[in-house]
Amino acid sequence: MGVDKFTKLLDDDRSIMAPAFITPVSSGTTTPTTTTASKLTEAGIKHSSHNSNGETGDLAPLDASLMTRALTKSPKAVPEFDGPEAKAQKTMTDHMVTVSWTVEHGWAAPELKPYGPLSIMPSASVLHYATECFEGLKLYRGYDGRLRLFRCSRNCARMCRSASRIALPDFDPKELEKLIIALCAQDGPRWLPKDQAGCFLYIRPTMIGTDSALGVQRPREALLYVILSCFPDMSKSLASPAPPAMQGQANGAAKASPGLRLIASSEDTIRAWPGGFGYAKVGANYGPSLVAQGEAKAKGFDQVLWLFGSDDYVTEAGASNFFVVVREKTSGKLQLITAPLEERMILEGVTRASVLDLARERLSKSEDGAEALEVSEKRFTMKEMIEAHDEGRLLEAFAAGTAFFIAPVSIIHFRGKDIELPMGDDNGVYARRIKQWLSNIMYGKQEHEWGVVVEEKTQ
Amino acid sequence: MGVDKFTKLLDDDRSIMAPAFITPVSSGTTTPTTTTASKLTEAGIKHSSHNSNGETGDLAPLDASLMTRALTKSPKAVPEFDGPEAKAQKTMTDHMVTVSWTVEHGWAAPELKPYGPLSIMPSASVLHYATECFEGLKLYRGYDGRLRLFRCSRNCARMCRSASRIALPDFDPKELEKLIIALCAQDGPRWLPKDQAGCFLYIRPTMIGTDSALGVQRPREALLYVILSCFPDMSKSLASPAPPAMQGQANGAAKASPGLRLIASSEDTIRAWPGGFGYAKVGANYGPSLVAQGEAKAKGFDQVLWLFGSDDYVTEAGASNFFVVVREKTSGKLQLITAPLEERMILEGVTRASVLDLARERLSKSEDGAEALEVSEKRFTMKEMIEAHDEGRLLEAFAAGTAFFIAPVSIIHFRGKDIELPMGDDNGVYARRIKQWLSNIMYGKQEHEWGVVVEEKTQ
Repeated sequence: MGVDKFTKLLDDDRSIMAPAFITPVSSGTTTPTTTTASKLTEAGIKHSSHNSNGETGDLAPLDASLMTRALTKSPKAVPEFDGPEAKAQKTMTDHMVTVSWTVEHGWAAPELKPYGPLSIMPSASVLHYATECFEGLKLYRGYDGRLRLFRCSRNCARMCRSASRIALPDFDPKELEKLIIALCAQDGPRWLPKDQAGCFLYIRPTMIGTDSALGVQRPREALLYVILSCFPDMSKSLASPAPPAMQGQANGAAKASPGLRLIASSEDTIRAWPGGFGYAKVGANYGPSLVAQGEAKAKGFDQVLWLFGSDDYVTEAGASNFFVVVREKTSGKLQLITAPLEERMILEGVTRASVLDLARERLSKSEDGAEALEVSEKRFTMKEMIEAHDEGRLLEAFAAGTAFFIAPVSIIHFRGKDIELPMGDDNGVYARRIKQWLSNIMYGKQEHEWGVVVEEKTQ
Repeated sequence: MGVDKFTKLLDDDRSIMAPAFITPVSSGTTTPTTTTASKLTEAGIKHSSHNSNGETGDLAPLDASLMTRALTKSPKAVPEFDGPEAKAQKTMTDHMVTVSWTVEHGWAAPELKPYGPLSIMPSASVLHYATECFEGLKLYRGYDGRLRLFRCSRNCARMCRSASRIALPDFDPKELEKLIIALCAQDGPRWLPKDQAGCFLYIRPTMIGTDSALGVQRPREALLYVILSCFPDMSKSLASPAPPAMQGQANGAAKASPGLRLIASSEDTIRAWPGGFGYAKVGANYGPSLVAQGEAKAKGFDQVLWLFGSDDYVTEAGASNFFVVVREKTSGKLQLITAPLEERMILEGVTRASVLDLARERLSKSEDGAEALEVSEKRFTMKEMIEAHDEGRLLEAFAAGTAFFIAPVSIIHFRGKDIELPMGDDNGVYARRIKQWLSNIMYGKQEHEWGVVVEEKTQ
């Protein structure tokens, strides 16, 4: 039912080759290539058209090589990193990329142009039927002075799956990746100055149904766009280490930080269900969670811990994936547990996948004084969590996602009872190690195929 | 969890008095009153501010009496009723009403102004998190030459409940009703000519979160608006009678009509879930249904019959409520059955409520040769439906909603098997009677408190 590519694309991270004009760190290439429009044309890959409305034919595919470029004549002042503008999350960079689509013609030429309002008809599909999906990733300024994306191809592939689920058009995810890179190459140099290693911008690819027909039907017109936002560094307010650049500052803040405070969802509010769309990054998963999220904030918690079913199976923490480190009752072995993907109720997070990959690669054997971890994607219930906590077997809990990165959890409030997890140097060992590894890749302290260098456009 | 007013408002239809400048048919008033801005001011009711963000204070309430009016200088040509423009559902009337809201100031003065595109920031909440809700109702041109709404206060009250569920601001539903009436009074006279009794426009009140902050949070800015659309007469393509004006035409079409063809949802696609938001008219219920709807169309069906749970409990048909007339196995009595509201999985339809009200009032006793009907709001499963059909006890099935009105069902396809319901003069007796009664009220053939006359604005 519109999700037929789910399984196929689930592990396609490696299969999507980086386009010619981006340079993975692991390749060892040090000669910068340029990302001019002409370069995009050379790199453009022609492919067969995709049309989710079941129609085939000579529809234009999404093609980054056709991108036009019109630069702003009045660049904005770049605000300080993690300052008030970032916290307000209303400041976007100077440009955006937009691409329109119609069922009759397919994808138009992408446009890189000054950031500004969209003109949308009051009857547009997106405003009534939530025909919308998005992605969230970051552009990092590394310690080697270079700009990097982190496993960007995964976000682009997931955007395709989300679009399919919400009746929006298909496209080649590699072309979206090129558009993201083109925008980052344009605005990254000025908005993430080279001497401010450890800074980042938040990238928001979005697709909306712009069809002005009021009928409840697949949109016959859509708009894909990419914007870049100043975004707060949520790591700083939490107990585990911030990106390397921020460490001095973060360690200062860490002492006062209470860790992430979660409140379990009430029995009458669920986030997702089997046969629904919890796995897709569609607006319909977010709006309906905001009332519960607002109530959690009003009670002094940071996020809702979303439970499902009569067993109170733990699924997600706010808009992040959720992990625990537990000592297994019978075997006595340490397990890193997170909810499974099979039921399609939880988001297939890029950070989630990276935590699992690194844990399997680097933590499955005892090393450096740390005990080995078994990695398990399985259902984990509140009853099991409480029992593990009461028996001293619950060692860590953390949220993982692009916005919060790796955020250790200090309290889980569940129907009148608090599960407390001590925050401190002796605790959260595994979350801290994984976070540091990921941070090293994002900010170029470790060369790794997940860190994709963006060659900067010279103005 | 944001739905605390659900029970309170569930039956408040009668409690919302019509504002002074609208005249219910049942009142017997025949002197038209005017709906000028000055009249709106007189009718304006000051009330305490509503703020779903939990903040109280001197926030401006929604106040229809403050409405400004700027008329178009280039009125559009009015297309023929039920013509190609109506079928495309892209033609709106000349004007719209918009009202902006901020968490700091509350509701601004409503504006009646020329219909046109909205300027929305690419980062706006509605485009990412589906912070949107809407209503659907119609403006009818009656046989007495007057314009009428049908139980409009119910739509306005439901809009409040939907807004609460999706974290949008609260308002006095009576004020929304006044804005709807003001727009209908402005555009109704020209778009529904007096000599074309039996015509209608579709009314779409909408609210969207316009906050440009990218954070996953309650929108701090919103826009409420009302638009009027040319809309196809879906009754004409179905077997039961159209509104009185169309009867000659509709009866002609009826012979060829196959009735509504439904295909049961597959096990892996579920529309709503207990603890979700199936009861609310929010975008998040519609976008995720479009893939299944498109697949149903491709297979030659009109709508999806949405099932729930391991028992295949029948919930809704497309975006309409679903009814059956069944002879009860043991008692032998006739029952009119529709899904219950308690679990909050189905939309509390205005047409649904009206069918139930009329059936209880007019069909509970044997009369005019028709057998008495018991009315039952309860779970009804596919197994029960198949058994009733096989035993000759399934007499009728129909969908009920604003768009499709009362639409008899001819086929239900369920996992490789067809349940066929004969279409013809001898069948669908109850659906036809109820439809005729409702039509009589909507088009002013019967004076009834549900039909609310809109006094027309003289240009």
